Amino acid sequence: MPLLFKKVKELRNFLKSKRCEGKEVGFVPTMGYLHEGHAELIKLARMQNDVVVVSIFVNPTQFGEGEDYDRYPRDLERDLELCERLGVDVVFAPDEKEMYPAGYRTRVCVGELGKVLEGAFRPGHFDGVATVVVKLFNIVQPDRAYFGEKDYQQLKIIQQVVQDLNVPVEIVPVPVVREKDGLAYSSRNVYLKPEERESARAIYRSFLLAEKMIKAGERDAERIKQAMKAFIERHPHVKAVDYVEITDENLKPKKRVEKGDRILVAVRVGNARLIDNWKVEA
Amino acid sequence: MPLLFKKVKELRNFLKSKRCEGKEVGFVPTMGYLHEGHAELIKLARMQNDVVVVSIFVNPTQFGEGEDYDRYPRDLERDLELCERLGVDVVFAPDEKEMYPAGYRTRVCVGELGKVLEGAFRPGHFDGVATVVVKLFNIVQPDRAYFGEKDYQQLKIIQQVVQDLNVPVEIVPVPVVREKDGLAYSSRNVYLKPEERESARAIYRSFLLAEKMIKAGERDAERIKQAMKAFIERHPHVKAVDYVEITDENLKPKKRVEKGDRILVAVRVGNARLIDNWKVEA
Repeated sequence: MPLLFKKVKELRNFLKSKRCEGKEVGFVPTMGYLHEGHAELIKLARMQNDVVVVSIFVNPTQFGEGEDYDRYPRDLERDLELCERLGVDVVFAPDEKEMYPAGYRTRVCVGELGKVLEGAFRPGHFDGVATVVVKLFNIVQPDRAYFGEKDYQQLKIIQQVVQDLNVPVEIVPVPVVREKDGLAYSSRNVYLKPEERESARAIYRSFLLAEKMIKAGERDAERIKQAMKAFIERHPHVKAVDYVEITDENLKPKKRVEKGDRILVAVRVGNARLIDNWKVEA
Repeated sequence: MPLLFKKVKELRNFLKSKRCEGKEVGFVPTMGYLHEGHAELIKLARMQNDVVVVSIFVNPTQFGEGEDYDRYPRDLERDLELCERLGVDVVFAPDEKEMYPAGYRTRVCVGELGKVLEGAFRPGHFDGVATVVVKLFNIVQPDRAYFGEKDYQQLKIIQQVVQDLNVPVEIVPVPVVREKDGLAYSSRNVYLKPEERESARAIYRSFLLAEKMIKAGERDAERIKQAMKAFIERHPHVKAVDYVEITDENLKPKKRVEKGDRILVAVRVGNARLIDNWKVEA
């Protein structure tokens, strides 16, 4: 089994001795309830580093009022087993008080990039993400940290924060991992009832639709977004399409679509709010 | 002469090799125009570490509109000479673009502690300070960093930020250093015309007045503050007393004064805005 640390001090002591031996540390920050998407991050970290640290912490400061903090799925035992199979050396699973002792006040504020797309629907979310990631980086002091492109805006924001604050870590992005039916792996997929699954799949299929339109010569972002939105909304358990947006790789909205652009989608299906994105290939 | 680095990458490469040799790094962040106050920080850093790094950077993001960023005194040659005399190993003197390349957005937001006292008169000042200090810590990765108690609120805020963001550095506070006439050393003292000097000295003398009142049994913070304010205002070149406040050591305002409390003062004399503070001894 991987070593399990719940205290910052214990983890630091362990990693300090490793660093003194000249070992390189790879870090995969997660909120637990690990799935195949996380597994890809961990496998890459395992290949590129001497020591692999996975953190498991459902970070309260990135959840807004009325969001799913309380019901977010948790299963540390299962997570530890998966980590063992993947050769993880250390799991860091602090409790809330260890990360946010009474009297904490400081936040990392990410600015404009945190106010669009997901940020427009989840005010303060990305400040919460950036704050906990900076804390975790300071605790683990990794050489490399692994982030999934599934949360594309989060990835871009973390890259921005690392650059702006001169954090000495290399951010390694890992492409979205999808289930057989195209649905992106997400801990939140457990919220989906069996009958909602086909509707959730509409997100992936809307990317294929967009790709088909683009291949057929359509370059107008507005028309592609409209078609995707209409397609997704046609599915029975879709409660709302929060956004369909097409941007360049730095999240700047596009009018004409080009290869390498990103299509970003957030959809509410049943009790789940799902996000996904797609890199334009055509 | 100390080694002079202007680029983050060069400084990092140098320090990496030192850390690999097991050397401990002490860091003194400054805005340059070094004086005896800085010298005390450097001397202590010299005693406690293998490698001493001094940064010299007049940080634009901690100056507000209409403040003295443009006229803030600068003299790198003189600073380097002082650093040499004090045995500094490395001076890091980046330009503005090196610290804030085009497109930077991230800020460290310090919350409530940054909105009172100095923060009430200089909105955003402490977010600017915290941001640049976190950047410098990430660049230098020191074992210890030295801050003067002269900027007491800044010291407390940096301690808070380091704790909240788990920054792996020990913050070492150093008491205020005063000139022979009691005026606290400050780069901004150069703004004082000779005839304003006696008025500037009123700040120190107001601390002695407070101390005398407390020794005589006065414990009411309001009466002590009133007396100090009236005393300072009596001096001819005093344009305004921005605040006289008495707090506990964590900047919480006090009604009854006790030993160990802090008296904090900001006064405008001529073209200078001076801050100072005093630890209650009685």
